[in-house]
Amino acid sequence: MSNRAVPLLADLIRRPSVTPIEEGVLDVLEAFLSPLGFVCTRLKFEGDGSYPVDNLYATRKGKEPGPHLLFAGHTDVVPPGDVTAWTHDPFSGEIVDGVMWGRGATDMKSGVAAFCGAVAQLAQTGALEKGTVSLAITNDEEADAVNGTKKLMEWAEAQGEKYDFAIVGEPSSFEVFGDSIKIGRRGSVSGKITVIGKQGHAAYPQRANNPMPVAAEIVRALYVPLDDGTEHFQPTNLEVTAIDTGNPASNVIPERTTLRFNVRFNDIWTGETLLAEIHRRLAAIELRGCHLEFEQLGPISRCFISPPEGHVSHLCDVMEDFNGVRPLLSTIGGTSDARFISLYCPVVECGLIGATMHQVDERVPVADVERLAEFYATYIASFLARKQA
Amino acid sequence: MSNRAVPLLADLIRRPSVTPIEEGVLDVLEAFLSPLGFVCTRLKFEGDGSYPVDNLYATRKGKEPGPHLLFAGHTDVVPPGDVTAWTHDPFSGEIVDGVMWGRGATDMKSGVAAFCGAVAQLAQTGALEKGTVSLAITNDEEADAVNGTKKLMEWAEAQGEKYDFAIVGEPSSFEVFGDSIKIGRRGSVSGKITVIGKQGHAAYPQRANNPMPVAAEIVRALYVPLDDGTEHFQPTNLEVTAIDTGNPASNVIPERTTLRFNVRFNDIWTGETLLAEIHRRLAAIELRGCHLEFEQLGPISRCFISPPEGHVSHLCDVMEDFNGVRPLLSTIGGTSDARFISLYCPVVECGLIGATMHQVDERVPVADVERLAEFYATYIASFLARKQA
Repeated sequence: MSNRAVPLLADLIRRPSVTPIEEGVLDVLEAFLSPLGFVCTRLKFEGDGSYPVDNLYATRKGKEPGPHLLFAGHTDVVPPGDVTAWTHDPFSGEIVDGVMWGRGATDMKSGVAAFCGAVAQLAQTGALEKGTVSLAITNDEEADAVNGTKKLMEWAEAQGEKYDFAIVGEPSSFEVFGDSIKIGRRGSVSGKITVIGKQGHAAYPQRANNPMPVAAEIVRALYVPLDDGTEHFQPTNLEVTAIDTGNPASNVIPERTTLRFNVRFNDIWTGETLLAEIHRRLAAIELRGCHLEFEQLGPISRCFISPPEGHVSHLCDVMEDFNGVRPLLSTIGGTSDARFISLYCPVVECGLIGATMHQVDERVPVADVERLAEFYATYIASFLARKQA
Repeated sequence: MSNRAVPLLADLIRRPSVTPIEEGVLDVLEAFLSPLGFVCTRLKFEGDGSYPVDNLYATRKGKEPGPHLLFAGHTDVVPPGDVTAWTHDPFSGEIVDGVMWGRGATDMKSGVAAFCGAVAQLAQTGALEKGTVSLAITNDEEADAVNGTKKLMEWAEAQGEKYDFAIVGEPSSFEVFGDSIKIGRRGSVSGKITVIGKQGHAAYPQRANNPMPVAAEIVRALYVPLDDGTEHFQPTNLEVTAIDTGNPASNVIPERTTLRFNVRFNDIWTGETLLAEIHRRLAAIELRGCHLEFEQLGPISRCFISPPEGHVSHLCDVMEDFNGVRPLLSTIGGTSDARFISLYCPVVECGLIGATMHQVDERVPVADVERLAEFYATYIASFLARKQA
């Protein structure tokens, strides 16, 4: 089968769409989808403390009433880093020995290209007439994600769009394609704790109050395990990501030190209950005359889980038929735009292996892209053929 | 009594001799001491990784054989900082309402001026003929102290100079002049410990190894008390002066973090035994796959103590007669050049109150300078009149 996903992916990689620069990458998609019957809307969102972002919403309503499938993805990529360290130009889309090289080859221009390739194939068969297929594509998933998928979903809801199920085309497989899909993600919250004592000369400790021992006690208190995990999630995990004092003088007891942490939390917690627990732990620490300041860093990413029954189970059935192996239902990894979609419908992440994502020499076997497009086509046809829930 | 110490102090303050710039300050002293019968030798030491430093050695041998008293001090000063924050020009030596203002007014041009004023007074009486009085004056005590008192003492020893006792004119009094002298100083040693783990994404902690919990355990281990103090010394004290990670990304588990410490140790320890104890404590820590790098920062300052009997006791007797109160024998505070002199003879620090040293608006009451000069004169006369030990 000659799938149009592969040349489309090369076209996408050749646009160096490093977040949030669009570089025509959405024009490429629009030009691909419009002839297939998709109604394309370009949406530029801005404000809320972040840069403006280009987004694309494309929807195709079939002739028959039927279920509505949403595909979500992003065309922005992380910077290539040291370009001279790459074996091939990161924006060439060059194919060598069956492997396509370039930034976005796995994360996730390949997912977008495969889905587009799949609908192009199905458009020839009439399979798309049995329901509605939409794509919500943002050019900012890798950075702030303030003017991307979140606002795209809010806009679509305001248009009256309702979805039965959504797929995010992010890499989700571990070792072989389809061995795992993600049905949820842990939440994430970060904070900064400043311990304030009293500065002084190291030779006169009785006139000073060193905040460092209190900072050490805070680390210990934060590292007490938060839970043992849940049915679908790993245990909540807290990492102290930095302690910084900025005191170069060995004869000076510093006035203050800061401590930064990040928590990845499961469905036992919300960001709010977790911060309350952290405050409880801080309140139990012997402060020895120091005092603390607390600052939440960045927004809370919520934890979500899609019910493993219904559409998730059906997707696993299709994958098992297609692949011979039923995928694991995973929730590991960082946050993704799926957290914004989970407010509107069940959502899974289902895509390739992400081994080289964000690395030098990001690349993807061409056969993997073709296989993903083939799977998406099989799945979309099966989904649209289902009786509506 | 009109003491020549006060105009000499003004002369010294007017030379902005910020370490190690000499600015003629030693010329002023030489011009003052030579007519009193002192043989003056100017000594420029350099090398050993530090800048060149001007030093002055002045010695006056009386007609009779007798004890040898060394006075040590420094003419360099710390920078004035923000000059506009000063009430009076920091290099004016201005006297307003009986107070002389300027950098070095307490630390320690006043000590040097008072001792010179004392010998000028005694030179008229014949009291100096009963023994030998020498001055070892450096222009680098406040910074590296590599080419100052240490080399001056080595040079003097090579000349065959032997001392019975030494006074360092640093501020030593707490609340009123003469309430305390320093008969020893704790040692000081600093170090840096780097905890090295493995960097990774905060969402995948199992692929990383965060050094922060190990750093926290190190802080706890280092803060276990080292001793309970000794007869003349406070307990050895360790301060962690900084932890620095330099990782601004809340989603990244850092590879490494550094921890700096400083120890002020009493006469139970040497720098070497103390570092060995720290290494023992580090070796007992569960490293959880991390490893440690250790670096000693700067040289070790040794701990010293002068025997409280003999010359120290005699100085206390003279002070008690002069002042009505016997001075406390103290060992608190930072290191001083006395540590270099302690290798050659018993040494005490005996001077004014140091309240404004190193601060904006450093100043000294003129009456205090006159009183110190008067005390030094009384003491020198009494010392030289003692039967040789």
